[in-house]
Amino acid sequence: MDEVQTVSLAGGEKEITVIPHGRNTRRPSTEEITVIGPESKFHVTPVSEEEHELNNRVPSRPTPELKFELDDEGDTLSNHNSITALLSSKFRDIQKRLKQYGIESPRFRKRLVSKWESLNYDVCENVLYIKEQEKYKSKKWVTLRWLSKWLVMFSIGIMTALLAATIHFVVEKLAHLKFDLIKHYFDDCAKNNCLYQPALMWMGINLVITVAGAALVTFLQPMAAGSGIPYIKSYLNGVKIPGLLTFRAFVAKTLGVVMSILGGLACGKEGPMAHSGSIIAAGLGRGRINFCNGKSISFYSAFRNDHEIRDFMAGGAASGVSSAFGAPIGGTLFSLEEAASFWNQDLTWRVFFSSMVACFATNFLISAINGDPTKLTDPGLVRFNAFKFDLKFDLIEIPVFIFMAVIGGLSGALFVVMNYKLTVFRKRYLNKNWIKIIEAGLVAMVSAAVAFGLMVGINDCTDKAPFDSHAVTAAVYCTDKKHNSLSTLFLTTPEGCLKALLHDPFESHGPVSLVAFVLIFFLLGVWTYGLSVSSGVFIPSLAIGAAWGRLVGIGVAHLMPENPNLGVNSSLIKQLDVGKFALIGAACQLGGILRTTISLTVIIVECTDDISFGLPIMIVLMISKWVGDFITTGLYDMNVEVMGIPTLPFECPPLCDDLRASDVMSHPLATFKTKEKVENIYRMLKEETFCGFPVIEDDPMAPGKGKLKGLILRNQLLVLLKKKIFCPEGQVPPRNITIKDFRDFYPVYLKVSEIDLSDEEKSYVMDLKPYYNPSPYTVEQKFSLPRVFNLFRGLGLRHLIVTDEKNMPMGMVTRKDLAKFRVGSKRGLVKIEQLKIEDK
Amino acid sequence: MDEVQTVSLAGGEKEITVIPHGRNTRRPSTEEITVIGPESKFHVTPVSEEEHELNNRVPSRPTPELKFELDDEGDTLSNHNSITALLSSKFRDIQKRLKQYGIESPRFRKRLVSKWESLNYDVCENVLYIKEQEKYKSKKWVTLRWLSKWLVMFSIGIMTALLAATIHFVVEKLAHLKFDLIKHYFDDCAKNNCLYQPALMWMGINLVITVAGAALVTFLQPMAAGSGIPYIKSYLNGVKIPGLLTFRAFVAKTLGVVMSILGGLACGKEGPMAHSGSIIAAGLGRGRINFCNGKSISFYSAFRNDHEIRDFMAGGAASGVSSAFGAPIGGTLFSLEEAASFWNQDLTWRVFFSSMVACFATNFLISAINGDPTKLTDPGLVRFNAFKFDLKFDLIEIPVFIFMAVIGGLSGALFVVMNYKLTVFRKRYLNKNWIKIIEAGLVAMVSAAVAFGLMVGINDCTDKAPFDSHAVTAAVYCTDKKHNSLSTLFLTTPEGCLKALLHDPFESHGPVSLVAFVLIFFLLGVWTYGLSVSSGVFIPSLAIGAAWGRLVGIGVAHLMPENPNLGVNSSLIKQLDVGKFALIGAACQLGGILRTTISLTVIIVECTDDISFGLPIMIVLMISKWVGDFITTGLYDMNVEVMGIPTLPFECPPLCDDLRASDVMSHPLATFKTKEKVENIYRMLKEETFCGFPVIEDDPMAPGKGKLKGLILRNQLLVLLKKKIFCPEGQVPPRNITIKDFRDFYPVYLKVSEIDLSDEEKSYVMDLKPYYNPSPYTVEQKFSLPRVFNLFRGLGLRHLIVTDEKNMPMGMVTRKDLAKFRVGSKRGLVKIEQLKIEDK
Repeated sequence: MDEVQTVSLAGGEKEITVIPHGRNTRRPSTEEITVIGPESKFHVTPVSEEEHELNNRVPSRPTPELKFELDDEGDTLSNHNSITALLSSKFRDIQKRLKQYGIESPRFRKRLVSKWESLNYDVCENVLYIKEQEKYKSKKWVTLRWLSKWLVMFSIGIMTALLAATIHFVVEKLAHLKFDLIKHYFDDCAKNNCLYQPALMWMGINLVITVAGAALVTFLQPMAAGSGIPYIKSYLNGVKIPGLLTFRAFVAKTLGVVMSILGGLACGKEGPMAHSGSIIAAGLGRGRINFCNGKSISFYSAFRNDHEIRDFMAGGAASGVSSAFGAPIGGTLFSLEEAASFWNQDLTWRVFFSSMVACFATNFLISAINGDPTKLTDPGLVRFNAFKFDLKFDLIEIPVFIFMAVIGGLSGALFVVMNYKLTVFRKRYLNKNWIKIIEAGLVAMVSAAVAFGLMVGINDCTDKAPFDSHAVTAAVYCTDKKHNSLSTLFLTTPEGCLKALLHDPFESHGPVSLVAFVLIFFLLGVWTYGLSVSSGVFIPSLAIGAAWGRLVGIGVAHLMPENPNLGVNSSLIKQLDVGKFALIGAACQLGGILRTTISLTVIIVECTDDISFGLPIMIVLMISKWVGDFITTGLYDMNVEVMGIPTLPFECPPLCDDLRASDVMSHPLATFKTKEKVENIYRMLKEETFCGFPVIEDDPMAPGKGKLKGLILRNQLLVLLKKKIFCPEGQVPPRNITIKDFRDFYPVYLKVSEIDLSDEEKSYVMDLKPYYNPSPYTVEQKFSLPRVFNLFRGLGLRHLIVTDEKNMPMGMVTRKDLAKFRVGSKRGLVKIEQLKIEDK
Repeated sequence: MDEVQTVSLAGGEKEITVIPHGRNTRRPSTEEITVIGPESKFHVTPVSEEEHELNNRVPSRPTPELKFELDDEGDTLSNHNSITALLSSKFRDIQKRLKQYGIESPRFRKRLVSKWESLNYDVCENVLYIKEQEKYKSKKWVTLRWLSKWLVMFSIGIMTALLAATIHFVVEKLAHLKFDLIKHYFDDCAKNNCLYQPALMWMGINLVITVAGAALVTFLQPMAAGSGIPYIKSYLNGVKIPGLLTFRAFVAKTLGVVMSILGGLACGKEGPMAHSGSIIAAGLGRGRINFCNGKSISFYSAFRNDHEIRDFMAGGAASGVSSAFGAPIGGTLFSLEEAASFWNQDLTWRVFFSSMVACFATNFLISAINGDPTKLTDPGLVRFNAFKFDLKFDLIEIPVFIFMAVIGGLSGALFVVMNYKLTVFRKRYLNKNWIKIIEAGLVAMVSAAVAFGLMVGINDCTDKAPFDSHAVTAAVYCTDKKHNSLSTLFLTTPEGCLKALLHDPFESHGPVSLVAFVLIFFLLGVWTYGLSVSSGVFIPSLAIGAAWGRLVGIGVAHLMPENPNLGVNSSLIKQLDVGKFALIGAACQLGGILRTTISLTVIIVECTDDISFGLPIMIVLMISKWVGDFITTGLYDMNVEVMGIPTLPFECPPLCDDLRASDVMSHPLATFKTKEKVENIYRMLKEETFCGFPVIEDDPMAPGKGKLKGLILRNQLLVLLKKKIFCPEGQVPPRNITIKDFRDFYPVYLKVSEIDLSDEEKSYVMDLKPYYNPSPYTVEQKFSLPRVFNLFRGLGLRHLIVTDEKNMPMGMVTRKDLAKFRVGSKRGLVKIEQLKIEDK
C-alpha cells in the first residue's frame, strides 16, 4: 500500500512516503501520511472504521492542498489553504520594508526546552489523601486550615510591604548621598576645570556597586536576574521553574536590585517586587526556609503541594505589584489573569486581601518614613499622581494620543527586536559568568559616562525649580542660580527621573536635552535589560516614553494657534498640560514594549490615581499593543520564547480541528502494573525521563495491555523507593507511610541516583494501589485538539492520558505536546507550526 | 441481605431499609444504603471489587456516625462528624438571639426549579461542524469573522451608550418638570393652606405613571422586572433564562425603568442598564430581531449558538455597567468574574473594548447633552466624584469606618431578610397580574405621601444652597429665602437624592431629617425591590447608606474635640468631610445588601474617581460583606435561590470527597442507537424531558448496552425530525441539512408538539452519525464529586456522561445534579444538603 512520492519542499525536493489507509474516497489527512524526512515527527495512526465512514458522509469536503515544509528552524506543517492571508501579506510587506532599512523582524527560536516541567496542580486523590481528608473533617482542622490560609495571606501582604518600604528607604537615602557627592564635585570642578574627577568617580562608583550586584546574582542564583516577571507569569501559567522561589533567589533579588539602582543602571525596583513577593509567599506557604548553607527551618507542612503554593504565590505576586505601584486591584488582576483556568472567587478574595494589606502597609510605612504614619498618601513606591492640576482631556486631543500610541507601538517593537538580537548574542558569546559580570560593569560605566557627556555637552541651563524640592541639581557651567536641566534627570534614580519628566514645569527641559535623553535612555534600556543583574524594565520604559511624550507636548504647544476656543491652547499647555503628554507617552511606550494586558492597564490607571483620565490611557495602551503585536511579540513573551518555556495560550490555536488526541500524544507509554516488581520500577525511573506513569490492570492474558487503573507520578515512586515500601511477593508491606512523608520532600524531590537498592530488594514487589491517583482525567484518542486543549488548560493538568475505546492507555498528552503547536504564517498562508523540543 | 431498621429522624421515627453490600469490614457508605422514606432520592450502586479492596487498605479509617435527617424542607444528609462547628455554633447563638428579638434569619427554600436548563457552551464537533469549519478556513471567512466579532462588540458599546444617554436625558428632563410642578404648588399652597393639593397631585402622578410601567412589565415580559442582574449573573454562570434576552424584555426594561423613576419609586436606572446592554448584545450577536408581533428581521446567522451569544452578552453586560457607572474596568470584571470558567484573554480584550467604547460614547453623549461634547467629564450616568476637596483619609478614621462597615453589614442583612419575607409573601398571595400592578401603584402613592408627610411634618429649614444648582427646592413653610431641607432629597430622582447626600454642605441636612429619611427610605427600598416594575437597587442602597453615613459624620464632628493635631477635626469635618462619611456609609450599605464582589468594589472605586480613597472603600466593602454573610446571603443570591436557579459555585462544596460520580448522576439513561427508529426518537422526546441523549453502539448481542459513541441534544433531534432527515431502512437520507438549518431555529427551538409524523414516517430510520457530538466529555463512575465538579465547571458543560469501566454509559451528570449539593449547618454539624428539584 505504501507509496513513495517525490514532493516539492521548501528546502528542495524530498522523498516522502505516503501511506494511505482505507478507501480512496477519503481525503488524505495528517493521520495517514508519514513524512519521512529530517526531523519529522509525524506518526501513523490507524483510523477506525467508523471515522472512515463518517468522513465519507461529507461529499462536499474539498481535498485541501497539502503543503509540507521542512526548514532549518524545525518541522512546520501547513495543510490548510491560505488563512488571514490578507493580514499576513500586509505584515509581510512591512517586514520586507523593514528589511530594506536593515531592521529585520526577528524569528524567535521555534523550540521548547524539555527541562521545564508542569506543576502538579491536580489533586491526587489516592487512598492516603482520602485518609488525610478524614482527619481534616474535624472542626478543629477545618477551622484551623481556613484561618491559616487567611493568616498566611495576611503575612504575605505585611512582609511584602516591609520589604518594599525597606528597599525604598535604603535606595532613596543612599542614592541621594551618592548623587549629592557627585554634584558637589561637579559644581566645584566646573569652576576649577577638573571635570574628569567627578566623571571618573561616578564611573568608579557605578562599576564597583554594579559588579558586586552582578556577582551576587550570577553566583548565588541566576534566576534572580531581570525582573522575574516572565518567570512568575510562566509559573502562574503552570510551569515549574526550579530555583525561582528559593531563599538564594530572594537574597540575590532584593540585595541585587538595590545595587543595580545604586550602580546607576537604567532599571527600576518595581518588577523585582513581584518576584520578591512571590518568594515570600512560597516560603510562608511551605512553612520552611532552606538557607544557602543547606540548613533549613521548618514550621508546618500542611500546604506543601503545588496546588496550595501556587495559590499563595498568586497572593505574593499580587502583593508585590500592589506594594510597588499602590495598585491592589491591578495586582490582583496581574496574578489572576495568567492563572485564568484556576480562578475562583474564594481565591480571588484571598489574593485581593493580601494585595490590599500590602498596599495599606506600604502606605503606612512610607508615610512613616516621610514623617507622619497617619497621613497615608503613598500607597506604592511609584505614583504618577502629583500633577498640580486635574488631568482633563479633550476630544480634540484624542488623535494626538492615537498618533503617540502608534509611535509607542513602533518604538516598543524596536526595543523588543533590538533586545532580542542582544539576547541571542549574549546566549551565544557572553555565556560565561565572568563575562556577564564584566558586561554589567561596562554598562554601568557607560551609563555614567554618557550621562556625564550629555550634561556637559548640551549644557542646557534652566532657572525653573524642579518639581521635587529634594532633587539634586548640579549647576555645572550654568550661572545665575540656574542649573543644568539634564542634571535633574541623570543625578537621580530612574524613578526620580520619571517623576521629573512627568511633573517638572514646562520650561525645565528643552527639546535638545529631551531628544538626547530619549536616544540615550532607549539604548541604555535595551542594553540593560537582560544583564545578569536584578532589574526591572517598567521604570526605564516609562521614562523613555515620558521624555518623548514631553517632546510631543512641546511640539503641540508650538504648533497650535493660541486660540482658547480650540481647547488645546499653547499657553494652557505651557502651564499644565505638558505632564499630561508625558504621561500618555509613558503609557504608549510601556504598552509598546510590554504589550500591556488588562492588569497592566489597571495598574497604570491606579498609579495615576485618576480614573477619568484612565480612558485615554486605556485607548493608547490598546493601540500601542496592536501596533506592536503587528511587528513582534512583547518583551516578556520574547523572554519566555527564548527560554523555551512551554506556556499554554488561553485558547487552542485555530485550524487544529483536524488534529486528534492520538496525533499530539507522546507515545509509546511506560506503564506499571498495580503490583509491580521493584526492579522494573527502578529501571524505568533510571532510563526514562517521564514524570507520570499510567498504572494498568494486570491482565495475564495480554501482558502490558490492561485497562487503565490510575496514574502514578515519578516523585511518588521515588519517595516509595527511598522509604522502601515494598516486600517479597505475597507479604504485607512492612512500613506504613503517610502523605506527610511525601510532603517532607516537597518541592525538591529525590533523584533516582540517590536511591540505593540491594539485589534482593530489587526482586521485591511494590503495591501501587494506595498511592496512585485512581481517577486521572482521560480522553479518547479521537478527541480533537481543541477539546483536549480546553480540558488540559481548564483543569490545569500535568498529564492527560489518551485511551482507546476499551479504556486502555495509548499515550499521554503533557504540556509540551500542546504548547508546541503555534500559529505561524509564511508566504501568505497561515499554518500550524510544531516547535521542536530540545534538551537545552 | 436487606435489613429494615428503625432510625430516629428529625420528623419522628422512620423506617429505613439499609442494604449493605460486600464484606462487613467495609464502612457503610452512602453508596450502599438506600433510604426509603418520603422524598428520598438515594439509589444503590454496586461497588466494584477493587474499590472494596482499596477501602480495606485503610485500617485507621474511622466508621463515621451516620446521620440521616429528613425534614420538611427537603432531604438532607450529613454523614460527616462535626465540622466548622465552632463557627456555626456561634452563628447559631446569634440566630437564637435574633429570634429573641423577633428577627429571624430566613431559611431559604431548599430547592431548585427543574425548568432552568444549561446553555450549550460546549461546541458540538459533529460532522456538520467540521464541514463548516472547512469553509471558514478560507482567508475571507477568517478575516471577516474576526473583524465582525470586534465590530459587533463596538456596536454593542455604541448602542448601549446611546440608550444610556437617552434614558438619562428623558428621565432628567421629565423628572425636573414633574418636581418643578409639584414644588410650585407646594410653595403656593403653603401660603394658601391648600397643601392637600400638591400631595394629591404628587400621589396621582406617581400612581398613573407607575401603574403604566408595572402593566408594561407584567404583561409584556415579566422577566424585565427588577434590575435583571440576578438573571444576568445566572446566565453568565451558564443557565438558560428563557425570555431574558428578547425584544419584549428590552421594551419593558427600558420604557419601564423610565416610568418607575418618574413614578417616584425608590429605585435607580443603573442595574437595568446591565440587562439592557445584554439584550442589545444578544440581538446584535444573533443578527435577528424578533418583534412582539411575531415578525422578525434577520441579518446574519454566523454567531447563532449559545457559545458566541454568551460571549457577546458578557460584552453587553459590561457595556451596560460601564455606561451606568463610567466604570469600564469594573464592567469588564462584572461580566467575567461570574463567567470565570470561560475567561480567556482574547475574549477579555473584546469585552474590555466594548466596555471602553460604551464608557467613551456615554461620556461624549452626556457631555453633548450638557452643552459641550468635547469636554468629556461624564463617563457614566452616576458619579460620586464631585467632592469639592480631595478625599483624604487618616489612620485614625479607620476604626470609625470599620464600625460603619459593621452597621452596613447588619442593616444590609436586615434588608435582605425583610425583602425575602416579602418575596415569599408575594409569591404566595400576590401572584396575580392585577394585584402586582395595584401593589406597584400603592408603593408609588405611599412613597409620595410619606415624602410629603416628612417634608411638612419635620419642616427642617436651611439657607445653605444645595450642591446642585439646578436642584428643585421647595420652601413649604420656610421663610427668609430658606428652603425645606428634605425637599432637596425628595423632590428629585433617587440619584439626585444620593448626590445631594454626598455633596451638600454640612449644615444642609439636620440629624432629625436624616434619621427620618433613613428609616423611610430603608422601608421603601425593601418594599420596592421585587415589585413587578423595572428597577435597580443600587441607587436606593447607596442613598440609605449615604444618609446614615452623613449622620455618623455629624456625630463624629460633635464628639471629637476641636484639636487640629488629632487629624479628625470637627471644624474641618464641617467644612469638607461629611461627604466622605456619606460615601463610606453608602459603600457599607451597598456591601451589606449586595455583598459586593471584586467587580462591585472596582465599580465603586471607579465611580468615585479617586483611587487613594479606594483603600478604605475596599476595606469597608470586605467587612460589610463578611458581617452580612454571617447572617444571610446577599440580595441577588437570595433572588437566585428563591427562583431555584441552579447556579454553580466556584468550587465544589467541601466534604464531598466521599461522593462518587455514580452517586450524583441521574439515571437510568435514555439512549439511542447510531441508527435509530424514528418512532423511538419521537416517543422518547415526547415522554421524557431529558435534553441530551447518549448515542451507543448498536450491539445485537446486548441490546441497550453498547459502548458510548457520542451525545445528541434534544434540540438537534427536534430539528432533524422537523426537517424529516430520515428514510426507510437501507436507503440514503433524501435531504441534506447544514448547520445553518439548526441555527435558523436558535434560540427558540421547536417543541415536540410542533412535529407531525405519519405512521409510515415513524417506521423509518434516522442515522444520527453526522449529527451527534462524537467526543462528549465523560468520567468514570468512581470519579469523586470534586473532580466531576471541576470538570463540569471548568469546561462549562451541560452534560457529562458517566461511564463504567467498559465505556458504557451509566448515567448523566447535569448542572442540577451538582448545584443541588450545598453546604448547610445544623445543630453544630456542618452537613451537605441536597436541594429538592421541583417543577415549579
